[in-house]
Amino acid sequence: MIVRDFNELKDGPRAVSDARWTSVRMLLADDNMGFSFHITILEAGSEHTFHYKHHFESVYCMQGKGSITDLATGKTHEIKPGVMYALDQHDKHTLRAEEELVMACCFNPPVTGNEVHQADGSYAPADS
Amino acid sequence: MIVRDFNELKDGPRAVSDARWTSVRMLLADDNMGFSFHITILEAGSEHTFHYKHHFESVYCMQGKGSITDLATGKTHEIKPGVMYALDQHDKHTLRAEEELVMACCFNPPVTGNEVHQADGSYAPADS
Repeated sequence: MIVRDFNELKDGPRAVSDARWTSVRMLLADDNMGFSFHITILEAGSEHTFHYKHHFESVYCMQGKGSITDLATGKTHEIKPGVMYALDQHDKHTLRAEEELVMACCFNPPVTGNEVHQADGSYAPADS
Repeated sequence: MIVRDFNELKDGPRAVSDARWTSVRMLLADDNMGFSFHITILEAGSEHTFHYKHHFESVYCMQGKGSITDLATGKTHEIKPGVMYALDQHDKHTLRAEEELVMACCFNPPVTGNEVHQADGSYAPADS
């Protein structure tokens, strides 16, 4: 059994930051769960375009307010506590945080922790 | 892209209840994400013994207070907001809710929605 506490990890090496977001890697590929699990915080007023071509991701809003636009359809959905979106089509999307967003994220395949966001908003495949 | 709202689903058929817990199935196997995702609420004062012999599960505490005991080692861990446990060894465990617990749960393989807890606290394999 693995037990980890976000409040202990948020200031250590499992917390990674990029442009106006921070993500705490609660589970990574080497935990051998077959998925990874992350608590991600997006700054109030920030906007992010991501395109996970090689991963499925689900994101559950625990706190905050914002919106997500599916860039294939142009449709925008409200993000608030209790709303989950799942990128089952590797959907390219823009996420906007009106207020700071605190999200619980699952990735399949699991993130290794060594990926970086590429210029196109994707992570490289896990084996590259 | 799938978008679902816990607050809309919690009173419908995606909410399943058993002895002193309710779980809202936000993602199931037929969503083809490779994992399932659930928001589970355990009643204050309740105690639960589970043993997922055929699944890996991670559980993140969003709200409440309680404890988990690993029945193989006898070790007990405090559960509070920010604490995650992951049953990477299919660990048989007892979960106690001192206060109502609200948990975000991921299963691999994904739960189909048709499983029932068996007498030994497990879910049957997904293909049975």
